[in-house]
Amino acid sequence: MKQTMYNKQRIHKTNGLELGLFTSGDYLPHPTTKKCQTPSERIQQIIQMGQLAEQAGLDIFQVGEAHQKHFLSQSQMTILASIAATTNQIKLSTGATIIGVADPVRVFEDAATIDLISNGRMELVCGRSQRLGLFKLLGYSLDDYEELFDEKFQLLLALNHQEVVNWTGEFRPPLEDQLILPRPYNQEQLPIYRAVRGSVNSLREAAQMGVPIYCAQLDRDLDTMKAYLNVYREELSNAGYQPDDMPIATAGYLYVGPGSQQATKNYQHYISAGYDRLQTDIYESVDFEHAQSVDSLINVGSPSLVVDKLLKQHEELGHQRFVGQIDFGGVTFDEIRRTIDLIGEKVIPEVKKYTAKK
Amino acid sequence: MKQTMYNKQRIHKTNGLELGLFTSGDYLPHPTTKKCQTPSERIQQIIQMGQLAEQAGLDIFQVGEAHQKHFLSQSQMTILASIAATTNQIKLSTGATIIGVADPVRVFEDAATIDLISNGRMELVCGRSQRLGLFKLLGYSLDDYEELFDEKFQLLLALNHQEVVNWTGEFRPPLEDQLILPRPYNQEQLPIYRAVRGSVNSLREAAQMGVPIYCAQLDRDLDTMKAYLNVYREELSNAGYQPDDMPIATAGYLYVGPGSQQATKNYQHYISAGYDRLQTDIYESVDFEHAQSVDSLINVGSPSLVVDKLLKQHEELGHQRFVGQIDFGGVTFDEIRRTIDLIGEKVIPEVKKYTAKK
Repeated sequence: MKQTMYNKQRIHKTNGLELGLFTSGDYLPHPTTKKCQTPSERIQQIIQMGQLAEQAGLDIFQVGEAHQKHFLSQSQMTILASIAATTNQIKLSTGATIIGVADPVRVFEDAATIDLISNGRMELVCGRSQRLGLFKLLGYSLDDYEELFDEKFQLLLALNHQEVVNWTGEFRPPLEDQLILPRPYNQEQLPIYRAVRGSVNSLREAAQMGVPIYCAQLDRDLDTMKAYLNVYREELSNAGYQPDDMPIATAGYLYVGPGSQQATKNYQHYISAGYDRLQTDIYESVDFEHAQSVDSLINVGSPSLVVDKLLKQHEELGHQRFVGQIDFGGVTFDEIRRTIDLIGEKVIPEVKKYTAKK
Repeated sequence: MKQTMYNKQRIHKTNGLELGLFTSGDYLPHPTTKKCQTPSERIQQIIQMGQLAEQAGLDIFQVGEAHQKHFLSQSQMTILASIAATTNQIKLSTGATIIGVADPVRVFEDAATIDLISNGRMELVCGRSQRLGLFKLLGYSLDDYEELFDEKFQLLLALNHQEVVNWTGEFRPPLEDQLILPRPYNQEQLPIYRAVRGSVNSLREAAQMGVPIYCAQLDRDLDTMKAYLNVYREELSNAGYQPDDMPIATAGYLYVGPGSQQATKNYQHYISAGYDRLQTDIYESVDFEHAQSVDSLINVGSPSLVVDKLLKQHEELGHQRFVGQIDFGGVTFDEIRRTIDLIGEKVIPEVKKYTAKK
């Protein structure tokens, strides 16, 4: 039984701690030169990032969804489909899909199609969104923020579970004996994670529903994170699940450079300038002050420091996957490429060596 | 002024009669062997068809949308994005997008993103759908069939025209100063066609709105088709447009083989078996009896007969693009490949020779 749940999520312990990249699809000028790529260049380079991530041996590549100025990932599914068609191994995922403002039927159709295109490499992460402008754009009310997520997420899970669906809800017309096509690769279910950040309620709900979580760790320390994940595990137990049996993914900053101090300084420069440019209060700059410590969840530094951090996190948190953001705030493509190369050469072999189960 | 409208549709007279392929994304067994590919194979071969079409020198490749049993193109946009990422020249289009049951904001986001991925090769064709099951599936009422199309199509055109949109309608919450992103490649507008089939009203509406048409010619003869298109041209004049200035695309069956009779027999076998399998009264088998005549709009036969038909159609109808369906009803991939090769070798050079303006 233990193995079943992992298989269902297409996670295999023999693979060790899975490492991946995510992009929020931001479109921001370089902080110093103020130069901006064209929108077409940026989108094409995100697709290339996915290809480079595969070549470097990363396990997964995720594309976020944003519908606002300074972002280019309004249509995360077409970007992911492009990566699916030009790669062979790497898993693909949204991160997150704002399911409350979408039609779960369309989301499932898109994701299942990408699963067929990629021979079974597609996953979904569903969140509620911190950026709220998209509610108005896509025709939903912020008053229904929680209820929309709950209803639509449940519906998505039902579509994934059954081929013929009967369903009634408040925010979408009912489905009566509707055939949901296409089905994912080999008639499997799509792995579907719930995105959580600070809310203990979100954790509890995910546990009660028996869905794996994708947890942003941006502004936490290791102990707080550990306690937070343990709430999820306890609640899984309470709900009758085997906690060790449910994969956990974490997500945060990732940046490597030859020297730890220089790497931290470089990346902080991008992050701060990016947040300044976005100028909304939900984008709070994260404190890089303690980033040099092995206990910091900001996975920035020399390759060996980042390896030490990831191994410590794996030991303490017992998670199955870490997904890092290397491209926020106008990072040049040369730097993106160098970072991916360094991760492939220096970080992945070490992390896999100590975490892969023989 | 004349040239302006063509440029806007990314059609260039110097290119002659444009030739393309469309697929409805059907998933049907071979009529004789009853063998079916896996869903994954069929979708991946549709993507390969787009690549082969480019290599053969075809101008455009279109993917239709269907949400029902025996079809795999529920998510036309992710399939098109995969083709965009793996080709360099060929134009891409939906054919059709059922805009009445979609959110035009999402459709525009998807299409503009594919336009950026492909450096400006994406187009849209919007129709009302003959297959009606998707209304229920996607949460709309068939009672609003006409009104949904009219409202959503108008909104899509507005999103294409302006970056910041104010809009109020009946079937979708309003847009107030909403920023619609991303914008298409080089800030151009996307070419957007209206799909028409039998209805003179559809023609008139398209003309009054000044949009180009995409006209299915399956069940017509040349004279009827000519008269039909002339209604569009007259109405364009009445509405103050220059008729010669508005591109017209036609769509129908396309199949070539060494001998005309054998080719016709082969393809009719697929078409009939496909319709039988679908078993709904909207799929009426088309009469192949007169397919050998140069006046038949069924573009099936030897390469030279198909060239003669296309040139005659171009002379009589004065259209700018023909898009053919070569894969309906379980056609094997070997046959699809052979047909595309023959079109590239024997049909395209001849058609271009006589239609391209120097």
